[in-house]
Amino acid sequence: MTASTGKTAVTPDTHTTPPARFSHGVRKGNILQVAGQVGFLPHVEGQPPTPAGPTLREQTQQTLENVRSVLEAGGAGWDDVMMIRVYLTDTAHFAEMNDIYNTYFEEQGLKEAPAARTTVYVGLPAGLLIEIDALAVLG
Amino acid sequence: MTASTGKTAVTPDTHTTPPARFSHGVRKGNILQVAGQVGFLPHVEGQPPTPAGPTLREQTQQTLENVRSVLEAGGAGWDDVMMIRVYLTDTAHFAEMNDIYNTYFEEQGLKEAPAARTTVYVGLPAGLLIEIDALAVLG
Amino acid sequence: MTASTGKTAVTPDTHTTPPARFSHGVRKGNILQVAGQVGFLPHVEGQPPTPAGPTLREQTQQTLENVRSVLEAGGAGWDDVMMIRVYLTDTAHFAEMNDIYNTYFEEQGLKEAPAARTTVYVGLPAGLLIEIDALAVLG
Repeated sequence: MTASTGKTAVTPDTHTTPPARFSHGVRKGNILQVAGQVGFLPHVEGQPPTPAGPTLREQTQQTLENVRSVLEAGGAGWDDVMMIRVYLTDTAHFAEMNDIYNTYFEEQGLKEAPAARTTVYVGLPAGLLIEIDALAVLG
Repeated sequence: MTASTGKTAVTPDTHTTPPARFSHGVRKGNILQVAGQVGFLPHVEGQPPTPAGPTLREQTQQTLENVRSVLEAGGAGWDDVMMIRVYLTDTAHFAEMNDIYNTYFEEQGLKEAPAARTTVYVGLPAGLLIEIDALAVLG
Repeated sequence: MTASTGKTAVTPDTHTTPPARFSHGVRKGNILQVAGQVGFLPHVEGQPPTPAGPTLREQTQQTLENVRSVLEAGGAGWDDVMMIRVYLTDTAHFAEMNDIYNTYFEEQGLKEAPAARTTVYVGLPAGLLIEIDALAVLG
């Protein structure tokens, strides 16, 4: 945190160091922004970032867990999330992603839809099938 | 609304049920986030979501109306919108979308530009030419 | 500013008039949203928008400067930025963009990562290689 700005960088221990000067999350006041997360497994010292697996299922579950880690490191949880942005690479993945997404939030014990959401189809680095970021408002 | 989080799901009667566990809009305090809207006509019981038509004009007008419905169901209006994200599928649609967009806001009686905006070109499900989401700050 | 909404349009003198009814930036209360910026040089009366150059380096530097101009016109700076959205057109540009990005923020004298960030790969108008928008929370 910088005293001057009141802004706190949020970086879970499990996460790889970002590949540039940005943070996995930033909190200021009651707003917490989670940076784009992908399906990388928890960081292992000396190893490059490694996806949880090649499948949409593995990557979606891991990506959601990575978003959750940032939320929790920032003092928030899924209940605080206002917006989830989902980036897929293939429109054919939409139905399956929704299944995995619904099951994930059911297992998190959330009674309600956690947030608003936008899903669009973009390019991602080779091997990555999904990226998710989130905006949370606490309190 | 959940008493615990102060977050309210916003779902206009006209809207189709989202295809997964998310809300068309979420309000918490003075922040209202509108999920990605497309050019679907108002929901008719027992029928699948149907675009307003195949053209950019039809879909852009309907999409903007769908955003407006969520804003209004959440107690807000275009005047409260800070950011509009426009997703098109083809750079050749930019000029025409802007024409439709400008006319729409003129007809809404807005004297000023309603918000900041980002337009990018992505993939969308077959038949859909535009998607729009919005962030509003009330009060 | 409209007295009714408390929303202020932010438009640096250096910027071209937006191609539709939107603002380069909007501030309301302590929130400042910067619209998608590209690598256009400062506006010259009577001339169409002109990119700083054909290269990723030129466009990234100019785009970041254009975001900064909007932040400053809105009473903010990089320290206030919570989220930076980077849109590239080619995954092969990621490493070089990060280099330019890191150097830029080092030269701005920022000790910390300025914000959370999401980078995705989309289509942009011909000749443009990067677009960036930003959300700032002041105070």
